[in-house]
Amino acid sequence: MAFQNEADLPPSLTCLKNVDALLRCPICFDFVSIAMMTKCSHNFCSLCIRKCLSFKLQCPVCNSSTTEQDLRNNRILDDLVTSFQSTRQQLSKVSFDSPPRSPFT
Amino acid sequence: MAFQNEADLPPSLTCLKNVDALLRCPICFDFVSIAMMTKCSHNFCSLCIRKCLSFKLQCPVCNSSTTEQDLRNNRILDDLVTSFQSTRQQLSKVSFDSPPRSPFT
Ligand SMILES: [Zn+2]
Ligand SMILES: [Zn+2]
Ligand SMILES: [Zn+2]
Ligand SMILES: [Zn+2]
Repeated sequence: MAFQNEADLPPSLTCLKNVDALLRCPICFDFVSIAMMTKCSHNFCSLCIRKCLSFKLQCPVCNSSTTEQDLRNNRILDDLVTSFQSTRQQLSKVSFDSPPRSPFT
Repeated sequence: MAFQNEADLPPSLTCLKNVDALLRCPICFDFVSIAMMTKCSHNFCSLCIRKCLSFKLQCPVCNSSTTEQDLRNNRILDDLVTSFQSTRQQLSKVSFDSPPRSPFT
């Protein structure tokens, strides 16, 4: 991942961590890439969920029965990932003047 | 809307505006409430899209033919709206010390 992870965020940006977590794939934990949504409303990278379904026709989050045909592109998540990464980068610069964080807090 | 709108964001938070825009319903322009996704991957408030479809069985964004049965809950958008609002509120406090914005810039 080219991007800094959450642990690198300055303290003033820890408030981004909930949004950050929602934009990650529950299989690979990276930001979703080509987001696909199941009927049960769970989201994964296209490659991650297809690989999973090739072993077991179940949603990896809730175990609902799921097939490849049930998957639907969730394009807004891809757009949100792009915008969120740019937001995070801009906010990191803004908060550059905040005091350095102690590694032990 | 109980929340401050984008125009009220301090300059250091204008970088939130793309994420903000993505979380809004293209019908009512408020943050999506009970997000529903069409087959064509467009998202609306549940009430807004159902009202629309009662007049015309088309997606209001791209005109693809759409029925109520095609709608799927996009729950992650509801969660993102909640987290984003809290992020925005926290960041507004953080940036409280930034200089006041001139109304003409
Ligand atoms: Zn993944
Ligand atoms: Zn599921
Ligand atoms: Zn709406
Ligand atoms: Zn559409």
